[in-house]
Amino acid sequence: MHDLERIGQAAKEASQYLARLAANQKNEVLLACADALEAKTDLILTENAKDMAAADPSRTAFNDRLRLDASRIKGMADGLRKVARLDDPVGEVLYMKTLPNGLQVGERRTPLGVVGMIYEARPNVTVDVAGLCFKSGNACILRGGSEALTTNIALVKILHKALASLGHPPHAVQLITDTSREAARDFMRLDTYVDVLIPRGGAGLIKTVKEHSRIPVIETGVGNCHIFVDASADLQKAEAIVINAKTQRPGVCNACEKLLVHADITDVFIPQICDTLTKAGVEIRGDDATQERFGGTLPAAEADWHEEFLSLVIAVKVVADIDEAIAHITRYSSAHSDAILTESNVNAQRFLAEIDSAAVYVNASTRFTDGEEFGLGAEIGISTQKLHARGPMGLKALTSTKFVIFGDGQVRA
Amino acid sequence: MHDLERIGQAAKEASQYLARLAANQKNEVLLACADALEAKTDLILTENAKDMAAADPSRTAFNDRLRLDASRIKGMADGLRKVARLDDPVGEVLYMKTLPNGLQVGERRTPLGVVGMIYEARPNVTVDVAGLCFKSGNACILRGGSEALTTNIALVKILHKALASLGHPPHAVQLITDTSREAARDFMRLDTYVDVLIPRGGAGLIKTVKEHSRIPVIETGVGNCHIFVDASADLQKAEAIVINAKTQRPGVCNACEKLLVHADITDVFIPQICDTLTKAGVEIRGDDATQERFGGTLPAAEADWHEEFLSLVIAVKVVADIDEAIAHITRYSSAHSDAILTESNVNAQRFLAEIDSAAVYVNASTRFTDGEEFGLGAEIGISTQKLHARGPMGLKALTSTKFVIFGDGQVRA
Repeated sequence: MHDLERIGQAAKEASQYLARLAANQKNEVLLACADALEAKTDLILTENAKDMAAADPSRTAFNDRLRLDASRIKGMADGLRKVARLDDPVGEVLYMKTLPNGLQVGERRTPLGVVGMIYEARPNVTVDVAGLCFKSGNACILRGGSEALTTNIALVKILHKALASLGHPPHAVQLITDTSREAARDFMRLDTYVDVLIPRGGAGLIKTVKEHSRIPVIETGVGNCHIFVDASADLQKAEAIVINAKTQRPGVCNACEKLLVHADITDVFIPQICDTLTKAGVEIRGDDATQERFGGTLPAAEADWHEEFLSLVIAVKVVADIDEAIAHITRYSSAHSDAILTESNVNAQRFLAEIDSAAVYVNASTRFTDGEEFGLGAEIGISTQKLHARGPMGLKALTSTKFVIFGDGQVRA
Repeated sequence: MHDLERIGQAAKEASQYLARLAANQKNEVLLACADALEAKTDLILTENAKDMAAADPSRTAFNDRLRLDASRIKGMADGLRKVARLDDPVGEVLYMKTLPNGLQVGERRTPLGVVGMIYEARPNVTVDVAGLCFKSGNACILRGGSEALTTNIALVKILHKALASLGHPPHAVQLITDTSREAARDFMRLDTYVDVLIPRGGAGLIKTVKEHSRIPVIETGVGNCHIFVDASADLQKAEAIVINAKTQRPGVCNACEKLLVHADITDVFIPQICDTLTKAGVEIRGDDATQERFGGTLPAAEADWHEEFLSLVIAVKVVADIDEAIAHITRYSSAHSDAILTESNVNAQRFLAEIDSAAVYVNASTRFTDGEEFGLGAEIGISTQKLHARGPMGLKALTSTKFVIFGDGQVRA
């Protein structure tokens, strides 16, 4: 705990420094960090090879996220350059109005202060988060997966050198190198110094953080996403959207996991979409009506409606109408991304108003739920909670506001 | 716990209903509630008299907040009528942009869902909170101080009848009638149903809620507010502002508790302001420099710089310059409301940028930190945290947003 206490204090001090930096000072640092990462490509690859050598070879998807190569390092550097080009959110005045007594009152964006991040063994997150926090004037404390520790230490050392070379405190970005479970728990109790804690990773990680954190948490990511194909949908577009949402990248949180089909179109659409899905290698788990209409369907269990498959599996259900579709989604959705495919404006508006999810779509693939796709420039995660930030979080989600008041001697009557 | 579980479930269900109400339906309810409260004035006074009869007569300020009379009941009713006149925040589209691929992406305001409120024995809070939550489409669960229970039961019964008479579920507003400490603790663990918990009251109450809540909390209220009188300040205006901020209503969170005076003006300003404060009945606790310049000064202890006095006491300190003032405030302020009095634009801008408080003032009394004074129309509390809402919280602080996306068959490449 002693060490974490020191890390927290140093972060708090750095955050006061960072809050005062001008955008061009911050951009200069981001560009210097990008150049430094590229210049040290060989060193980073040597350190990453040590992590890879210690990795369990059977975890292929996991190891793919852990592994770096020259183009991925260039990708991280380019990510920092892109963040440098984004507008600085700090200092933005959201509005300023003059009250009857002559007081001018407005709200002005400020950094949050100290951002804590707990994530899995993905070295690119280390650089992404450091860049986004720095640009938004926040100090950050990073706790990445133990399997990426050697890589992360190398990356943060390079960022520190770049910060120091421009005369800025390296404590703007700190890495917790004790990757024990105890240290993680202690980190979650650093509420004196850390303003927000963002877990990024699987459902288990997020649940643990929610349970143990004394720091306010922004919950991210779990996506049990639905597509409801309404009676009036354009079935050709519907097929393309469902296939895209399910198969384009099945392992991510905005992939479609559940398909609801209006009863009026089951005879046509169920055989059509199930055939195409099956040919694309997707396993279909269906309710009775789906099983009747498509031979290859496995029976869906109750648990399937709750499950985030993250693989080439989809559960399919026939619903009587939009009411049943909305009721089903309200009950089972993780409130990440849900879509209606319809040509009915009334139904589109109802779905938008009544489905209470971070992203609600009409006639498009759920795969678009992403900070870059939504035009935020970059993303630190996707919030599935309602407080503070919801959906893809860009730089603005890393800010707070304060009221600023200009007077000329006003006192309250 | 069984009973609270039921309350939570009923609130969740009601919240789904409330999210769909149009503004005119909500306003109709608010006006009906206002009329019902006025019509039942006698009943409310009878019930309130029971609470007053059981109250400890020695707690005069406490009892003053507990006591109702006809004009206070009219005040509560008028408060609801005022909330009815405010714009409905729900459904507001913050922006809508068209992306290169033709997708239209925007953010739309939604209710938070279920708002929990823990507060002291102030019956007006029951009605205020119910009105603000209802207008913003949220269900609320109220847990007021035990000393006001009989009054609160009567008030909520009247609101329920008005809701039911218009065909709406009474569970939109629920009161926890078990005022035991155990029930309060169980309430704080209802995170399955309650989206946010707002404690309103003294520092002790807020600390308890922060420590025990599993529901996300919005911290409110504690105000250790500072005024820094810079060397260039207009000393006549400064005197009026300090007197107003300290004495106009000393028991509230936006009252001034600390006065910092630039060293260059101590010889003139310390005797002047301390004399006026003393004549207004204010006790002065000062550092050495203040004690030297004003005879009636008591020595300030370290604890005084942290303390929220909430009474006619002020601590006064001489600082060498704006740097020392900013450092002192950064260290001791509760980050509620802090002011600089200065004619220097450079120093005003520095203070605004560097003081990290919910409300930062130039040349005005800190007493203005209030939802109505800031033009928000009403206020559910003053947030002193940085996540989600900061400073006076109006209807918008009771909302979240969701991304809404309109497509025409777009899929991700």
